[in-house]
This record gives sequence, structure tokens and C-alpha cells, in this order.
Amino acid sequence: MIPTPPHSDGVQAPVFASLDDLRAACLDLPEGDANAALAATERQNALTKPPGSLGRLEEVAIWLARWQGRPIPRLDRVAVLVFAGNHGVTAQGVSAYPTEVTAQMVANFAAGGAAINQLARNAGATLSVIPLSLDEPTADFTQAPAMSDEEFLAAVAVGYDAVPSDADLVCLGEMGIGNTTAAAAVAAALFAGGGGARWAGRGTGVDDRGLARKKAAIDAALARHADRLRDPLAIAAAFGGRELAAMLGAALAARKKRIPVLLDGFVCSAAVAPLVKLRAGALDHVQAAHVSAEAAHRMLLRELGLVPLLDLQMRLGEASGAAVAISLLRAALACHEGMATFAEAGVANKPH
Amino acid sequence: MIPTPPHSDGVQAPVFASLDDLRAACLDLPEGDANAALAATERQNALTKPPGSLGRLEEVAIWLARWQGRPIPRLDRVAVLVFAGNHGVTAQGVSAYPTEVTAQMVANFAAGGAAINQLARNAGATLSVIPLSLDEPTADFTQAPAMSDEEFLAAVAVGYDAVPSDADLVCLGEMGIGNTTAAAAVAAALFAGGGGARWAGRGTGVDDRGLARKKAAIDAALARHADRLRDPLAIAAAFGGRELAAMLGAALAARKKRIPVLLDGFVCSAAVAPLVKLRAGALDHVQAAHVSAEAAHRMLLRELGLVPLLDLQMRLGEASGAAVAISLLRAALACHEGMATFAEAGVANKPH
Repeated sequence: MIPTPPHSDGVQAPVFASLDDLRAACLDLPEGDANAALAATERQNALTKPPGSLGRLEEVAIWLARWQGRPIPRLDRVAVLVFAGNHGVTAQGVSAYPTEVTAQMVANFAAGGAAINQLARNAGATLSVIPLSLDEPTADFTQAPAMSDEEFLAAVAVGYDAVPSDADLVCLGEMGIGNTTAAAAVAAALFAGGGGARWAGRGTGVDDRGLARKKAAIDAALARHADRLRDPLAIAAAFGGRELAAMLGAALAARKKRIPVLLDGFVCSAAVAPLVKLRAGALDHVQAAHVSAEAAHRMLLRELGLVPLLDLQMRLGEASGAAVAISLLRAALACHEGMATFAEAGVANKPH
Repeated sequence: MIPTPPHSDGVQAPVFASLDDLRAACLDLPEGDANAALAATERQNALTKPPGSLGRLEEVAIWLARWQGRPIPRLDRVAVLVFAGNHGVTAQGVSAYPTEVTAQMVANFAAGGAAINQLARNAGATLSVIPLSLDEPTADFTQAPAMSDEEFLAAVAVGYDAVPSDADLVCLGEMGIGNTTAAAAVAAALFAGGGGARWAGRGTGVDDRGLARKKAAIDAALARHADRLRDPLAIAAAFGGRELAAMLGAALAARKKRIPVLLDGFVCSAAVAPLVKLRAGALDHVQAAHVSAEAAHRMLLRELGLVPLLDLQMRLGEASGAAVAISLLRAALACHEGMATFAEAGVANKPH
């Protein structure tokens, strides 16, 4: 599988002219299709099983129905979008790997050798890898905002435009050395109290001294950008990164198009967190595919009101957890579409 | 898909002549292939990801290697075995559904309308449904042992013989109105302390009064069969059921043939629990596919030393949870077999 980076040239025309323009778009969101969800619920209750006995498989079948607007949803076109970016905060010694690994892994994606290549193919999904200005890392956010408003909006636009209008499901993920530091900083800025000590984790495997530097970098950024902490989008620009901004844009575009979304891990969850800070229910079209081994992810999901589908101690990123969860959705739809009803099967459905 | 019940005629010659014969077989178990597991571990550590970052996907790839004896395991032949039985203890009013539903659901399996039909097909597995003397329920174990030794051994033999020698993986599951009461009774008898109050749950959806009757039935059985509580196999015969005995036999046969096994839910886990009471490590070839919504299942898995792969609040049985987990194993093997190594991909693998 050769990933196709539709917007890797960086010349994508921005969808949003200003932070205020983007903010307005984030507040004006369509709801799901209540009729399709009701029809799917009624179907689930008629199938040959005790009511509710398929647990979250029933829940996700109804969720897909709601957001696809189809009583019997489909997963014919599943798009896995992996955004890649580089981070100036790596100058603070926060990662176990050198920055060059981001571009090397993007090449590995193109060659088909990474985990996400295997997982996307295994799940019957199409993989697109979208690098964002890898040779221009964001600014070190302990010194200055990671991105200017213009840089942030351009990255949001790349993600917004990467969502195929005909997708039945979108899976979001990322690659970027240093980006668990950016994600922890965004979470610390959005959810007050705790700072670096609460939100920093070991990412790809940083040692004790690196973890201490990571916490210090986050706390330094919280102090430096204290004037931005009331604005979720300003937080995303100052503490985040291009791939995080792109995932925010993609989640927003999917909502506008009423396409359900599977989030991957900690970085992905932090990337879309500003949306729900701006507007309650902004992530109703989203499921958390998994909770990762990065300790702060569980806390962050709780803040977002999301219950993960999987807990497999994964911590790779690349949309790998989201891709694994696709198979749960396929299992849910296989039952939803294929099972007989009590009436069809002649099975007694009356408690005696 | 038409399920094939290879031993539904009940004339299977017993593999084991006595409880002592079976006990001896349960004590004499082969271990997995340590060399294949080591080779799989070394391969995992060379792939383009931080070590351990695929979490349990790495663990199960190595586990499959150990029990298949192949550094790169395969899942070409996955057998889902669903055993069905009826239970005399339903006379105590312990289930929300009438006993006739067991046979009705077996017919639904044959017609392809049940959840497991869809889930097995979706997972690329072959489904076999094996009813065990549905028109002769076990005795009501509040009054007498559920099965004679001969009946128990015959049911064990059916399960033992149902495991295809060429299977790459076996998934075990069951159908049987009243069998969460039998499973809870087996667990209460094997793991002293707590009795019916600790182990009884709502099964397919019994109401408060039914739940009280379920607890009382278990406690009555514990009192009646107090002389059997030191012998795990005598417990399985007195408190269990034919489909539980068959799952015990199938898990034992898979171990003898070094075929890895996925357990389904609470009933399945209780069925194989006597094996590990007889011999430590007897379930090393087994993974718990999921933890069900039946509250006692989490406790039982802890007693068995098993960590479930999924927690989707399922409580259907039929091997449904095991079938969903097959896709996790396929994802694990896709990565294990298809990913590039650091050397192949030219990706830096040195912490800086």
C-alpha cells in the first residue's frame, strides 16, 4: 500500500481566515440522525439475543447509524489519516528518539513497513499519510508560541481538507517525535490543575531525567503563555503542533459532514480536546478507539467524556489503536445486519 | 454458514474410562515451544516501533508462537466450537428464559441467524455447534449431582474429540438456559468463601427474585455436595453441565495438541477452571478473550490468573466474545509478520 499525501506540498488554501472564523465554525455543528439511531435501536432489540447482551457492539452499531444517517450502517470506505509534524520543544531533551525519526517513519509509511500499514490493510481501510512541513519544526513552546495563528490555521485547514466526503468512517492518528510533550502541554493548559507533573508521561520511552525535563518544559510553557489559557484555540496554537492542529481540523470536518470518527491515542485525544472545550457535545460523533499505556490518556478521556473501546497497553500512535478498533465496528455491524429477529427464528422471547 | 455438529448423536466412545483416568490426563501436559517464543520476541524487538509499544498485540503474537511452535504464527484454520446443554436446575426458577430456548437457539445457529454465525464469518473462522443430549437435562443439582461420573466423562469426551488436530486456534463457547447458575456453582465450589451471594449474577437478565432463587440454589448445592468440594473433577460433575464438561475436554485436548485457545465468557471460564485447580499452568495455552458484564467473571478471571483482551460489556455467550477477539490476534500477526525491522527501514533505533 502506497500512502497518498494529498496536501504534503503545504500550499493548501486555508479554510479559515482567522481564529474567530475557526471558532465560529466550531460552534455551528450539525447533530446526528435521531431517526436512524432509533431504527437501529429497535432493530437491536428485535435480534435473537437478550436485550443489551452484545454490550458496546450494540452501542457502536447505533452510534454509526446516528452519524451515517443509515439504520443499517456500512464500513465500505474507511479512511485512516495519519498526520506528521516536528516539534521545537525537542530542544529541551524531552524524547527518547531524535527528530529525524519523524521523516524516517514517514518514509517507512510510504514503503509499507510500519505497524499502521499492516493494521490498515488488515482492517480493510485506506491509509493516507500527510506530513506537515517536517523541515520546519514548530517553535520551542517554552520560548514562544509553537505556531503563529497563520501557521496554526494552515495546519487545521490541511486536516479539514483531508477528510474524504464519501468516507463511512475516519480514523485519526499521528507521528511526530516530541508530540506527547505537546499533547501533555495542551491537556495541562485546557484542564487546569496539575501541570506537567499530572500530564507528562514516558511517551516512546523517555528515561527519568527526560521525564523531568518534559514536566519542566510543560510548566515553563504554562507560565510563559498564561495569557492564552482562556482560549482553547489559542492553547492549541501555542502548546500544540501542526499534526495536532490537523487532527482538530479533520475531526471538525468529519462532524460537518456527519462522518463518525475513531480517535487513536493520547496525542490524538489532546488534539481534539479544544473542540469540546469550545462546545459541549462537539465530540458526539467520536469514539475513543483505545486507552493507551501513556498514563495521562485515561485522565484525558475522562475529561472528554469518552469511554475507550480497547485497553491493550498500546502506545505507538500512527492511528494504530484506531485501526485495531475498526474490527470491533465490523463485528458490530455483522451482527446488526446479519442476525435473525426473534420472530424470524422462532425463538421464544418472553421471560417466563 | 451451516454449522456441523460432529458428535450430536451422543454415541461418541468415551476417551476417559474413569475420573482417575481423566485426572491423570489433566496432570500430564506438554509445555509450549520456548524457542519459537524466543524467536518471536526477538523479531518483535527488531520491528520499527518503540519496544513494547504494541502492548498486548506483541504479547499475543509471542503467545501464539509459543503454542503453535512457529516463530511466525498463522491463523488460517480457526475453529469456533459452541457446545449446548440443558440444566435441571432451571426447575428452581433461575433463568429469565424457558429451557426450550436452548434447542431453539441451536436451530438458529444451524439456520445462520445467531450472533456467533455473523461473528465467526466476520472473523474468518469455522463454526461447529455441538448439542449434548438437549432432551435429557442434567439433574437438578440442588437435589442430586448434575451428572453421574459416566455422563460427565462422556460429555468431556465429546469436547475432547471436537478439537480439530490441524486448527491454528480454537475458540470455546456455549449455549444453555440455566448455565450461568451452573457456572456460578462450579466457581463457588472451587473457590471457597462467598457462596451464591458472591458468584451469582443476572445471566441473560433474571429479575431480583430470580437472582435470589439462583443464590439459594447454589448454596443448597454447596451444602448437599459438601463431600465433593476437594476434587475439582467431582465438582465439575456435580455442579456443572454437559456443555461445561465438553469445554473442559476441548481445552484439555487443545493443550495436548499444543493449540492455543480463546475462552469466551463466564460459563466458559468456569468450565475450564477445574483444570488449573488440578495443575498450575494448565491454562498457559489459553487467553481470556473478554471479561463479560456478568459481575463474577472479573473475579473468576483473577482467580485463574487471566487478563482479558476485551471489555465490551458483552454477556451473550455463544463464543461471541471469543470470536470478536480473533480480530485482535489477526491484527497482532499482521504487524508481527508484515512490519519492517529498523535495519530494513533505515530508521534510527538509538535513544539519543
